[in-house]
Amino acid sequence: MRTDVATAKVLSEELLTLAGVPAAAAAQQAQLLVAAEARGVRSHGLLRLPRLITRLRNGTASATRTGIHSWFSPTYLSVDGEQGLGPVVALAALDRIVPAAREHGIACVAITNNNHLGMLGWYAEQVAADGLVCIAATTSEALVHPWGGTEAIIGTNPISIGIPSCPRPLVLDMATSEVSMGKIHEYALRGQKLEEGWALDRSGEPTIDAEEAIHGSIAPFGGAKGYALGIALGAMVTAITGCAAGTAVAGTLDDVNPCNKGDMFVVIRCADAPISDYLDDVRSSRPADPQHPVTVPGDRSAHCDAKSRKYGFEVPDDLWNRLSTLRQELTADRS
Amino acid sequence: MRTDVATAKVLSEELLTLAGVPAAAAAQQAQLLVAAEARGVRSHGLLRLPRLITRLRNGTASATRTGIHSWFSPTYLSVDGEQGLGPVVALAALDRIVPAAREHGIACVAITNNNHLGMLGWYAEQVAADGLVCIAATTSEALVHPWGGTEAIIGTNPISIGIPSCPRPLVLDMATSEVSMGKIHEYALRGQKLEEGWALDRSGEPTIDAEEAIHGSIAPFGGAKGYALGIALGAMVTAITGCAAGTAVAGTLDDVNPCNKGDMFVVIRCADAPISDYLDDVRSSRPADPQHPVTVPGDRSAHCDAKSRKYGFEVPDDLWNRLSTLRQELTADRS
Repeated sequence: MRTDVATAKVLSEELLTLAGVPAAAAAQQAQLLVAAEARGVRSHGLLRLPRLITRLRNGTASATRTGIHSWFSPTYLSVDGEQGLGPVVALAALDRIVPAAREHGIACVAITNNNHLGMLGWYAEQVAADGLVCIAATTSEALVHPWGGTEAIIGTNPISIGIPSCPRPLVLDMATSEVSMGKIHEYALRGQKLEEGWALDRSGEPTIDAEEAIHGSIAPFGGAKGYALGIALGAMVTAITGCAAGTAVAGTLDDVNPCNKGDMFVVIRCADAPISDYLDDVRSSRPADPQHPVTVPGDRSAHCDAKSRKYGFEVPDDLWNRLSTLRQELTADRS
Repeated sequence: MRTDVATAKVLSEELLTLAGVPAAAAAQQAQLLVAAEARGVRSHGLLRLPRLITRLRNGTASATRTGIHSWFSPTYLSVDGEQGLGPVVALAALDRIVPAAREHGIACVAITNNNHLGMLGWYAEQVAADGLVCIAATTSEALVHPWGGTEAIIGTNPISIGIPSCPRPLVLDMATSEVSMGKIHEYALRGQKLEEGWALDRSGEPTIDAEEAIHGSIAPFGGAKGYALGIALGAMVTAITGCAAGTAVAGTLDDVNPCNKGDMFVVIRCADAPISDYLDDVRSSRPADPQHPVTVPGDRSAHCDAKSRKYGFEVPDDLWNRLSTLRQELTADRS
């Protein structure tokens, strides 16, 4: 069915407050989920909500905690997320380190015991819109095999970089896997074959069968370089936050385990630089296909967001029905 | 011909001191060149030396400058490199920000007007060996076309990340292009065909002719994601340092232009994390080919380095002869 940003946000907030989340925190969590839907990043949108509600109900996510803050220095913040909601804990931390970076030139936060952040690029975009560079990285469940390996032992380890520019920030937001496990699940549901090179089965053999891939592993993107980048980002977040690594990571894809991955944000001041002009030069450079002008990271997402805000967006019927049923259940629980 | 680390370092130092570089600085610059040779990264090794000597002789590189340091805060250093030697300026900066990061948890430096750094991974490796995470990024001449584009408008924008672990640091060190321009030149010299997808000719058409590619552009690695990463890293370094961007960048591949790219290093303290155990798990995970165990970034380079230090390494005769001739010329100039 078709819905719009406001309706989806109201429903999300309602479900979260019914599950015990204070209004302001519910608005933050809902904002992340709906922003992902609006930008076409469904894997980080409303489909995460039922699992999140389960986590709130069974206590693997805390409705009210915002994190315990320890300042090692005026520019280095450590946060124990106390299993709070990912965006709530992360935004409370960013609220502290962004002013610190503005004052001191650079600041960072290392976060542990925090639930899923949602769309990483959203944070980098907000910081960049505020005039600062943001590097964001987080770890995740081991779904990816090493280059030349066959076992799922590396997270999809995404990175996001936000850079101030006009008319909008440049926002890199990517996982270091060839595809997401969400996409593999979509293909499985539709009974569609995978593309060659996307995945291995559980015995480590290449497969184009999505059901086999679910029990196997996903390829790193970009061959040896993408593998190197992914494992380095994961190891960096683990080294800095002290979080779990590899197959020990749990809690972002299930509803039973506490979240033991790590998150980090580094925020840095900018010099006076001709970024906007440069990005316009790239956009107006000669495309391979005249029908498809060159874009820079963040353009497609911003375009999709604008369209969704104007015309609304599609949500699968079964997901919307599930959310409506959840609302009834939570309301019944309350009364 | 075959040489060894000590001989190559002595010859490099001799050439540099003959060109007016003080002994300590010559040792730093020589160390970077020889470390690259020893690790098998020839594109950043001795072949850079003749151009560097020319730059020293014509004044586009300064033999004695080490950079002007401006502290924005105790954790944020800006350096005007004064066209000094890349490693000399960078190491002087790292000598300041590594202790700052140890004290405050994080510190960074933004460098402009500095000559070519050489192998980026070397710096990250040193910092990681010292117990801290290092993120290093630098920009470079526009050789890469955008994803869906046809013009060389993006640098090969490398990134290096060093992470403390045993028995050696994990060191990611990669350009964000599919191949280096150095490799294209090697193929051209040998009259060898390129692999499909590596490059476009000057009219923007795919080519496997190395000569055509030299006047064209190189592909970003890893498709759309690699492109997004590369342009984001380049824009980040430009935003932070205020250096030139895109086709305006010059001075790392020629011997006539001042160097106007930017360099940045971020150094961050570590938590107590099981990185070494995790990396060993990855190394001992099941390989696709039993003859080729899984490696992690830095393993191959460390293996090559150990071998070179034990058995020496090959340097092309014409390069060695050119260096010997240069020594005679410089000695004659002096007397």
